[in-house]
Amino acid sequence: MLINEQAYHTIWYNNENKCVVIIDQRKLPFSFETIELKDIKEAWHAIQDMAVRGAPLIGVTGAYGMYLGITNLDPSELTLDKINKLGDYLKSSRPTAVNLEIIIDELIANLQACEPQSWEKEALVFAEKIKQREIDYCSSIGDHGLKLIEEIAATKPGETINILTHCNAGWLACIDWGTATAPIYKAHQKGIDIHVWVDETRPRNQGAKLTAWELLHNHVPHTIVPDNTGGHLMQHGMVDLVIVGSDRTTRAGDVANKIGTYLKALAANDNNVPFFVALPSTTFDFNISDGVRDIPIEQRDENEVKYMEGIASNKLVNALIMPEDSKAANYGFDVTPARLVTGLITERGICEANETAISEKFKDLMS
Amino acid sequence: MLINEQAYHTIWYNNENKCVVIIDQRKLPFSFETIELKDIKEAWHAIQDMAVRGAPLIGVTGAYGMYLGITNLDPSELTLDKINKLGDYLKSSRPTAVNLEIIIDELIANLQACEPQSWEKEALVFAEKIKQREIDYCSSIGDHGLKLIEEIAATKPGETINILTHCNAGWLACIDWGTATAPIYKAHQKGIDIHVWVDETRPRNQGAKLTAWELLHNHVPHTIVPDNTGGHLMQHGMVDLVIVGSDRTTRAGDVANKIGTYLKALAANDNNVPFFVALPSTTFDFNISDGVRDIPIEQRDENEVKYMEGIASNKLVNALIMPEDSKAANYGFDVTPARLVTGLITERGICEANETAISEKFKDLMS
Repeated sequence: MLINEQAYHTIWYNNENKCVVIIDQRKLPFSFETIELKDIKEAWHAIQDMAVRGAPLIGVTGAYGMYLGITNLDPSELTLDKINKLGDYLKSSRPTAVNLEIIIDELIANLQACEPQSWEKEALVFAEKIKQREIDYCSSIGDHGLKLIEEIAATKPGETINILTHCNAGWLACIDWGTATAPIYKAHQKGIDIHVWVDETRPRNQGAKLTAWELLHNHVPHTIVPDNTGGHLMQHGMVDLVIVGSDRTTRAGDVANKIGTYLKALAANDNNVPFFVALPSTTFDFNISDGVRDIPIEQRDENEVKYMEGIASNKLVNALIMPEDSKAANYGFDVTPARLVTGLITERGICEANETAISEKFKDLMS
Repeated sequence: MLINEQAYHTIWYNNENKCVVIIDQRKLPFSFETIELKDIKEAWHAIQDMAVRGAPLIGVTGAYGMYLGITNLDPSELTLDKINKLGDYLKSSRPTAVNLEIIIDELIANLQACEPQSWEKEALVFAEKIKQREIDYCSSIGDHGLKLIEEIAATKPGETINILTHCNAGWLACIDWGTATAPIYKAHQKGIDIHVWVDETRPRNQGAKLTAWELLHNHVPHTIVPDNTGGHLMQHGMVDLVIVGSDRTTRAGDVANKIGTYLKALAANDNNVPFFVALPSTTFDFNISDGVRDIPIEQRDENEVKYMEGIASNKLVNALIMPEDSKAANYGFDVTPARLVTGLITERGICEANETAISEKFKDLMS
């Protein structure tokens, strides 16, 4: 997608400098900077320090990181044992990112099938392939979601279609297009008159910081709103469609996503606003059914709530915004029960959020 | 209530200095400062610049402001025409504060009934009487709400009672006790083991800034949470009771309150958590029934969303927290339909949120 009118991916291989380049997402939206990753250690830090974030992007960074690790090995070190050690090291950068683990294991399995002297080349081919797969998934999600938006547009000719989204399930979390944003970008590119309500998404403000910045650079009309606002907007007919992403979706269609998603789903349900979740099939956890009961919710540092990053007098500051002696709680996610989800937008098409529909569409992936 | 272990009201008359003293609420929670109001102009600015806020406190400041205006008049100026001019001037400080208008009109009607030479004394007596009435209302709300908390406590002996509140319907918005916080303070003083989840309340953060600060100084255990969190807490049985305030409640029981209240009411309803609204009878608007349709929602400056006040390097800063070129919307309130309200805690007792119950309890106030 566009940044300053130039097309970008969130990660790419620079053949000339033999390095991998990423966007430093910690600096957004206040400054746009890229980082060159030259070895596996730099890839580890990019993941651990959250210069890259979002399951798809973390996975692809892991694959490129393995390539960087192998590139820097002596020929004598090209052993499976050594490769496994590199894999374990990279996985330790973000132990809860299941996606990272799966991709690294897949890469190592691929390498086992070929001669050590081709591992370097194979690892790069694998990373590029995984990257392309993520792009294709997001693009397909966009195409299927576009149809939904077109259907709504057909019911109100000449009027703006208002879409609300929470957090950043945008192209910055992926490689291109995004998940929740893919239908939005496709609709915008097709000339449909859309406007996006961007939930600020406290405490880390991924909506206000990242989604708004993405939409701004891609010229999609949008308005940032405090997370408190969505209910009022829906009560007054100002939202035609909600699209959010997901961090994990159960085989019954319960959706774990950024904290606050459940509240928007309740408001959508109360006001007959369609509530869709956009996700690649890799986000399903077919092992669990009841999301509220079985998905563990990460509790993060209270200082993410108590301090706020911003620009004051042209300097980046981290300001205390509440009484220093009060405690704060910081739950990362919540679970939206399937009964509140109108449908799941996947790369295979739109699917109802229930066990029957999901098993039918993704039978081959359920083991 | 307590500030630094000393009992305070939010406003008081200082007989020695012939002035009215207020707490400068714009400085909270980062510093505690009082301001002496010596004339009507200073009272006007205290209201207009939001050094005082909350309908009950604004009303009482208006009454004291009228006293300060009359005190500074020449005996030749003690005419009804002049008094009306003072009233109009004070009302212009916050034209949407209906309460302010009603109290000033009530004061002027009182003065008309007596001789001009006693107006100064009468105005002060009136202000003190209005102030005491607000304290009594809040204290009664506290007593009625306490019974609710005691009932819940009886069902889970030995366990902490978790109460969630949104925004600041605390003693800082009133004179003492507060509305939503009154039952909390009464329960805490009675030794009931309570803990309060304090919604941050974006964009102006009245929960994190004011409610948390109040509770901290009054030693009530509490935890600040982003506004996104309440649904998750309720899903997991971590909230026993929600109590919020109200800016305006219709005769049918629809409740206008700080933006985001409706989302918490939906979550409470979805998880069978009792959702109560604490309000003095003066907050009812008996002229309207359908709140979503008939209560106009104020839209405020987008910079309240885009900038955040806090302390960085020991200095108060106002930091830009999102892309400068993105728009933001700032709706001040939302309306919670009566069907989501378990009950109204008023100075006359607890009342169901429907037209029949409300008309029965407040018949004498409906004209």
